[in-house]
Amino acid sequence: MAKALVTYYSRTKHTKKMAEIIADNIGQAGHEVTLAPVADLNVDDLPAFDGIVLGSPTYYGVMAGPMKEFIDQSVKYHGQLAGKLGAAFASSGNVGGGNETTVLSLIQALLIHGMLVLGDAEGDHYGPVSIGAPDERAEGECQRFGRRFGQFLTRLFPA
Amino acid sequence: MAKALVTYYSRTKHTKKMAEIIADNIGQAGHEVTLAPVADLNVDDLPAFDGIVLGSPTYYGVMAGPMKEFIDQSVKYHGQLAGKLGAAFASSGNVGGGNETTVLSLIQALLIHGMLVLGDAEGDHYGPVSIGAPDERAEGECQRFGRRFGQFLTRLFPA
Amino acid sequence: MAKALVTYYSRTKHTKKMAEIIADNIGQAGHEVTLAPVADLNVDDLPAFDGIVLGSPTYYGVMAGPMKEFIDQSVKYHGQLAGKLGAAFASSGNVGGGNETTVLSLIQALLIHGMLVLGDAEGDHYGPVSIGAPDERAEGECQRFGRRFGQFLTRLFPA
Amino acid sequence: MAKALVTYYSRTKHTKKMAEIIADNIGQAGHEVTLAPVADLNVDDLPAFDGIVLGSPTYYGVMAGPMKEFIDQSVKYHGQLAGKLGAAFASSGNVGGGNETTVLSLIQALLIHGMLVLGDAEGDHYGPVSIGAPDERAEGECQRFGRRFGQFLTRLFPA
Repeated sequence: MAKALVTYYSRTKHTKKMAEIIADNIGQAGHEVTLAPVADLNVDDLPAFDGIVLGSPTYYGVMAGPMKEFIDQSVKYHGQLAGKLGAAFASSGNVGGGNETTVLSLIQALLIHGMLVLGDAEGDHYGPVSIGAPDERAEGECQRFGRRFGQFLTRLFPA
Repeated sequence: MAKALVTYYSRTKHTKKMAEIIADNIGQAGHEVTLAPVADLNVDDLPAFDGIVLGSPTYYGVMAGPMKEFIDQSVKYHGQLAGKLGAAFASSGNVGGGNETTVLSLIQALLIHGMLVLGDAEGDHYGPVSIGAPDERAEGECQRFGRRFGQFLTRLFPA
Repeated sequence: MAKALVTYYSRTKHTKKMAEIIADNIGQAGHEVTLAPVADLNVDDLPAFDGIVLGSPTYYGVMAGPMKEFIDQSVKYHGQLAGKLGAAFASSGNVGGGNETTVLSLIQALLIHGMLVLGDAEGDHYGPVSIGAPDERAEGECQRFGRRFGQFLTRLFPA
Repeated sequence: MAKALVTYYSRTKHTKKMAEIIADNIGQAGHEVTLAPVADLNVDDLPAFDGIVLGSPTYYGVMAGPMKEFIDQSVKYHGQLAGKLGAAFASSGNVGGGNETTVLSLIQALLIHGMLVLGDAEGDHYGPVSIGAPDERAEGECQRFGRRFGQFLTRLFPA
């Protein structure tokens, strides 16, 4: 059993809903999951997690400001997150509206922390995206993503 | 009246269809438009255009190989395209499948040629994207994009 | 004479130094330039500018949090910046440290505002980057970038 | 002992030199390494590798055409590379010339294949970059990157 964090910023609840589905499916894979809005998270908690999943709405093509501020604070533990498993997801107002570049902005931060970032050969390749409120397609992507993240956590951090 | 090029790579005809709508709408804005698959295009023709629009399907998150090969050849005219107007579009198999990063891979090439790249405050911000065959939404984006590209061509290259 | 804004976030003064050189050279091209740290800028001032240049240090591969917060606030004028001229620059701690992706994160925001973004066929293609304090190379890039931005402002916004 | 591939496209030998250092250091970590220019590689060989490292010069901000053509061919094994370890590197003509975006274009392809991509908290975060011929700094980055890639191969594919 590994320790996973799913943290997100959300105003419209779309990203929050995605986070809940992802956290639930990581948990079902047998891991201890912490689900928290980024505002409730203490940066000092970060080093304790084996896997970190970040989610944000799409604000001007990258993550929202509050998520960026949190990532900037994480410099306190720079180097200590290396080798952990990371992944990201995003919601956006419309197709072609920047959701992929938002996911990639989060992935860039995870790579710079020296983490292993998990892609997907099926579906939403960089990480789940939702156009507006998660529909059936987006919910399915979040489920599959959570299960998959859980499987790789098990592989990387065997009991 | 300015000279515009809309060039694309397309196997499924999805990108081709987008290119046709875009070219048609640039033409309706009063410009002379050349519409050509990238395979029929001679790199020596590039310097004659005032505006260049590139389209590609999403192959592994960036433009398709044949479009990349053409862009690599364009180094022959490096510097001579500076200040021209550029923009890009892409099709992809699914939402979150890499269409935005494909558009951005094309935009990066246009920026490196020193061109002016046109974004959009509405709709598909980096350039039109289609999920599979262009549906009504994607066709509308291509129409609006073509008209808008035509307007900025007029502004940048007044008669 | 057009109105240009050069705004930046800077703690080490590296980005500030770049901003000063850029602002100076846009001014020498005959434009009215406002140079301001992002903390001193009121988002309500944005619509008055014809050209906007954004600069940031590289924090985890994209712009710093305070610059992101400002960009998020700029949604108040979404659509009103369309057609303005935009460009970006960044400093970073080292080569390969994320400066290009930081410039691109700023460019994405400018494109989503519907602006025209200026690339460069020479030198730092997406916008000037400095590794640590600006050295002679980086200062030269900032000078050339400022002059070039000024030239395109004149072209887009003739008296 | 895992099986690793280091493949590259290179005309000036800069990228080739980086590939040699990386392959050498992965080998020193105890793995079986295949080092090959992409032109000599058969796409049918891909599924046999546990780790794949891709290198390219910077051509218009993304990987060179021949590397892109190879990646496009790799669709034949789409899904079969999921869970393998991946990473990328690039050379470029100058600082700010597109080397980071080239590395990221390769990383995007690896993520879309469902691979685990390894970032770095030190040095060249997304993967090693060289400005022109690899200097002492770039060579050191390639050495560290090769060793690190080897360590994670061991962790992911224990004997």
